Amino acid sequence: MAVRRFYLSCLALGTLGSLCILLTIYWMQHWHRGFAWDGSSLMFNWHPVLMVAGMVVVYGAASLVYRLPQAWVGPKLPWKMLHAALHLMAFILVVLGLVAVFEFHNHQHISNLYSLHSWLGILTVFLFACQWTLGCAVFLLPWASLWLRSLLKPLHVFSGTAIFSLAMASVISGINEKLFFSLKNATKPYSSLPAEAVLANSTGLLVVVFGLLVLYILASSWKRPEPGVLTDRQLLPRPFPVAYMPVAEEAC
Amino acid sequence: MAVRRFYLSCLALGTLGSLCILLTIYWMQHWHRGFAWDGSSLMFNWHPVLMVAGMVVVYGAASLVYRLPQAWVGPKLPWKMLHAALHLMAFILVVLGLVAVFEFHNHQHISNLYSLHSWLGILTVFLFACQWTLGCAVFLLPWASLWLRSLLKPLHVFSGTAIFSLAMASVISGINEKLFFSLKNATKPYSSLPAEAVLANSTGLLVVVFGLLVLYILASSWKRPEPGVLTDRQLLPRPFPVAYMPVAEEAC
Repeated sequence: MAVRRFYLSCLALGTLGSLCILLTIYWMQHWHRGFAWDGSSLMFNWHPVLMVAGMVVVYGAASLVYRLPQAWVGPKLPWKMLHAALHLMAFILVVLGLVAVFEFHNHQHISNLYSLHSWLGILTVFLFACQWTLGCAVFLLPWASLWLRSLLKPLHVFSGTAIFSLAMASVISGINEKLFFSLKNATKPYSSLPAEAVLANSTGLLVVVFGLLVLYILASSWKRPEPGVLTDRQLLPRPFPVAYMPVAEEAC
Repeated sequence: MAVRRFYLSCLALGTLGSLCILLTIYWMQHWHRGFAWDGSSLMFNWHPVLMVAGMVVVYGAASLVYRLPQAWVGPKLPWKMLHAALHLMAFILVVLGLVAVFEFHNHQHISNLYSLHSWLGILTVFLFACQWTLGCAVFLLPWASLWLRSLLKPLHVFSGTAIFSLAMASVISGINEKLFFSLKNATKPYSSLPAEAVLANSTGLLVVVFGLLVLYILASSWKRPEPGVLTDRQLLPRPFPVAYMPVAEEAC
């Protein structure tokens, strides 16, 4: 992936991610009377917005930190801290999104955690919490040996991608579920595709396109080189010279 | 991944895949009066079974063909044909699954393609059709040059994984949607978690576990070696010696 293509992908990601969040806000504002933090249905409206923002957009951006060419040179620690901080930000948004839906359910005496969407969603958040805690303990704090870091790195990378895929499935099933609820007694039902359904379905597809673009960049060979290892793609001209870390500890 | 771990994963995949299909059949047989091919709701019941079987289980198995150690030696063409044939089988199951739901909708005068589940599902099947056709044209038929094959291989591999992830999201949202429909007027609603909901939710989670295991094997370094390229994992003892292809054309 040439540097120009990478930055074009980043531009597309920024635009798509912003659109996903803005369209979800518009959906809740225009058709569901906006937002509040009072246990009413207006509190529920924070749930889709915070989940799309936290579990998809910020999580996706956080997972791409090491793809930035600026992260390819110099010490790795500041980039690790940015990676962890952005994921923590995503996690805080997700927890607030969970509080919004649990508080709404509790105030309205609606059962929690019965639908497949909620089962998958809570599993995804639990795995995200484990991934963040284990990631910090092993890769950020200085206690773990290089051997342990090398052993766990492929699992950490795979788990990060897997959790992101689960998040997409959770968001899609959540948008679908919300539309069946909110258009149940509407004059124009979901099956007649009213404007709300078209907007929310399109937002769901945009989430998918955003997610696939993140997964494509993650799967490409456009990444920070390991010390002493160059892939054929990384032999292409770079924006600036890459200084390989002489200290093995920097590798993970 | 050692050979014993690989075959244990295959055993787990076989068990999980069979369970996913059997539980979906049981769900439709026990709570929805079984199957027919007559435009009634019994015809709809084929839809979840054929989609889980085709788009998840057979598709997942087909994508792992090149991971079998037997596929690492000798000519690649028979394994390509098996890969394509299994995917064709998956595609036929998926098309039958689509016929089942469209015929049911048309007979009962229900709109087609309005929910996010249906939008994502039809997009996934369309991408699957493109992937299969392009894959056959470029990698199976002898017309394409080695240059074109090398150029398209990473895209083919990524698209295959991406379509599988979309299939999982489609299946999850589909199970969720079906439960909201079928438990709408039930004496025990979805929110009280009746036995049907527990079984179908659990089937959805099993689909996710199956999918993640497929993605884990696909992401691991356990794969047919490229001519002249050995990863560190592939330097581990193998079940039998690997004969590297002297003909470059075999690489893609």
